[in-house]
Amino acid sequence: MRMIDIIEKKRDGFELTEEELFFFIDNYVKDKIPSYQVSALLMAIYFKGMTFNETRTLTKLMLESGDQIDLSKIEGVKVDKHSTGGVGDKTSLVVGPICAACGLKVAKISGRGLGHTGGTLDKLESIPGFNISVNDEDFIKQVNEINLAIVGQTKQLVPADKKLYALRDVTGTVPAIPLIASSIMSKKIAGGADIIFLDVKVGSGAFMKTVKQATELSKLMIKIGESFGKKVSIAITNMDQPLGNAVGNSLEVVEAIDTLNGHGPKDFTELCYKTCSHMLVQSGLVEDSKEALKLIKNSIKSKKALQKFVEMTNYQGGDSSYILDPSKFEKAKYIYEVRASKSGYVKHIDALQIGEYAMKLGAGRAVIEDKIDNASGIVLNKKVSDKVDSGEVLCTIYTNKENYLEIIKGLEEQFVISSEQIKKPKLIISVID
Amino acid sequence: MRMIDIIEKKRDGFELTEEELFFFIDNYVKDKIPSYQVSALLMAIYFKGMTFNETRTLTKLMLESGDQIDLSKIEGVKVDKHSTGGVGDKTSLVVGPICAACGLKVAKISGRGLGHTGGTLDKLESIPGFNISVNDEDFIKQVNEINLAIVGQTKQLVPADKKLYALRDVTGTVPAIPLIASSIMSKKIAGGADIIFLDVKVGSGAFMKTVKQATELSKLMIKIGESFGKKVSIAITNMDQPLGNAVGNSLEVVEAIDTLNGHGPKDFTELCYKTCSHMLVQSGLVEDSKEALKLIKNSIKSKKALQKFVEMTNYQGGDSSYILDPSKFEKAKYIYEVRASKSGYVKHIDALQIGEYAMKLGAGRAVIEDKIDNASGIVLNKKVSDKVDSGEVLCTIYTNKENYLEIIKGLEEQFVISSEQIKKPKLIISVID
Repeated sequence: MRMIDIIEKKRDGFELTEEELFFFIDNYVKDKIPSYQVSALLMAIYFKGMTFNETRTLTKLMLESGDQIDLSKIEGVKVDKHSTGGVGDKTSLVVGPICAACGLKVAKISGRGLGHTGGTLDKLESIPGFNISVNDEDFIKQVNEINLAIVGQTKQLVPADKKLYALRDVTGTVPAIPLIASSIMSKKIAGGADIIFLDVKVGSGAFMKTVKQATELSKLMIKIGESFGKKVSIAITNMDQPLGNAVGNSLEVVEAIDTLNGHGPKDFTELCYKTCSHMLVQSGLVEDSKEALKLIKNSIKSKKALQKFVEMTNYQGGDSSYILDPSKFEKAKYIYEVRASKSGYVKHIDALQIGEYAMKLGAGRAVIEDKIDNASGIVLNKKVSDKVDSGEVLCTIYTNKENYLEIIKGLEEQFVISSEQIKKPKLIISVID
Repeated sequence: MRMIDIIEKKRDGFELTEEELFFFIDNYVKDKIPSYQVSALLMAIYFKGMTFNETRTLTKLMLESGDQIDLSKIEGVKVDKHSTGGVGDKTSLVVGPICAACGLKVAKISGRGLGHTGGTLDKLESIPGFNISVNDEDFIKQVNEINLAIVGQTKQLVPADKKLYALRDVTGTVPAIPLIASSIMSKKIAGGADIIFLDVKVGSGAFMKTVKQATELSKLMIKIGESFGKKVSIAITNMDQPLGNAVGNSLEVVEAIDTLNGHGPKDFTELCYKTCSHMLVQSGLVEDSKEALKLIKNSIKSKKALQKFVEMTNYQGGDSSYILDPSKFEKAKYIYEVRASKSGYVKHIDALQIGEYAMKLGAGRAVIEDKIDNASGIVLNKKVSDKVDSGEVLCTIYTNKENYLEIIKGLEEQFVISSEQIKKPKLIISVID
């Protein structure tokens, strides 16, 4: 078998066999075929697509290229969630505790942030002492005892995806639906959960530009999940503006704690509840979404969900007094309010740009080696459709860097102010399962 | 400027600017951008094509990536020819001498063979003593004195094409019309001639599978040539079977000498005459193709064309007694006749396979380092449409290798014999200028 024949077969629109896909993935992981042949194949896939069989097989082969998490020693229904990447997305910090409080098992492997997107692990590490390096045995024990653990990857999960994704990122082959689907699903299936909730972002800053594309991707991922015996639900959500108000590590943890205390931002709270509700219904623990919502609201009101966050923090070596009193989180040296220079209604806030500015303030990494400043970031005081008077605060900057003046100017420009009244955008466009 | 943006721009169907194409070519030649980004761009070009402006600019940039041959010190009309690669294609060995005899200047840079296609330089080197390494000054002098020189490349012509072609060859991006056109035209323009005749092969074994594709490529190359002030004529020819009868180095030289003596194979003679005729008309030396043909036939009858071959051989250090008496060429140790096992009409002879078998017999190189056995090869005794009786000779094998028995069996299978009478295939499908 030769890679050139596989490239030409796909280029000419034919379906690749399992043997051909295995040849490609196996040899690429082993460095036996050059990247320039792989990138040519990826571009051919971008144009010619893949059948369901090909996509399913690619998912399986990527999954089998590395280790898989065995959650069989955890009793109960194991759930997992994933987002295709957003700004201000601290959903896991709220959904995990709520689901745990409602009786689901949340054994979650999370990642770090890069570029404009934050990472759950970085956010958790802004809690003093919080340890994300947990061995398998302790991880299983923790979930069995308190229903909740969010940790970093210790095993080598899906190395084929890691390598392929890095190549796609520099060759213009990221936005190919079968490649996105197999990349996400191979990682989620390797994570071992039974029920998976995915948040597919759509909008100018996301890979999926249209609801049609996002729907196509979602249906494909559900079908792949099913073929591996997993129940997958997907929310297609708007990411034309950041999720919630806070962007930055400890700032987002504080917003998550606020939400677990019942007074989080409305859009963010809605998405968290919807995610939990779908997982609860899928698990069979409740009859329908109405019953689920009752259970969720009760977990908030009774502080049981917040208590789960406290328990997880204690279990993983963190100082849980910060969860109970978020005012203890260290403040950034410089706090600056960005004010509107004219009155009107907020028409648009570019999520991607807000993420980039938060990164520049110290909240994120440009390259993997960068150190994160936990206290820095941006909190939005106005969101799309809000009325704003000239001189009113649009957002607040938190940073320990001195050269923030330029960023203030840039941030103000991210808020497009219109004289016409704007309709509140819908965060959750649709939910598919 | 970033390569990823250039890839995505082409992927999304936009026209690349000269600056973007320069960034790509210049950095690739300097090894400053990785092959995996270039191959992704090439595959995007395969699918999205290039505008005429892009193709013309790419040609120019490739041309400028290296040296160009300056033929300004040669007086008269300078002509060149090129074929997109065929089996048994010894046209240059006949066209060069005829054109020279008719008063045109043939200053030709040729190449070596690789794989199933032979190379003009290898063929010439089968003449004892023939030297293809000629310096610029001697090359110009020779053409000024005898109108004809066929030599190897000494300068670095079009290094960008060399590098790009090697990458296209292993990434399934060879058959993209703008890439083929710019590759051929950049090399031909670098060669310095005023009048260029191209032979575009079409058929199962060629890059161009259909006459429609070949016509599109031809028109594009003519337009590119014009924009550089070159007169380009193109013959679209059928390569469903080898050209002429002989395949292999000295075997082909002998067939070329036969043709210059006026008794070459009919199809091959026709193509040579057509090529010369177009160049003569384009040059203005004759009024029309009728007058051209008269001149050509006279150069054969008078032996003036053969004499040009003799002069060139003398000039380049070869033993011209071989040209005057081709029976002097050393014979292969083993000569074997492949006979038909049934009667009928020859329906098909796979040119590509014949080329591969000739290579296996010693006539060609599998890799660039292989040494060529000049005496080995295949001579076809039957061609498509010929009547054949069971037991009659289909072709004759010449080789110094002992393991030729398997090849005999394989070769017999390349002759598809049909019980129905077959129409003689048309060699020259059309000529465009």
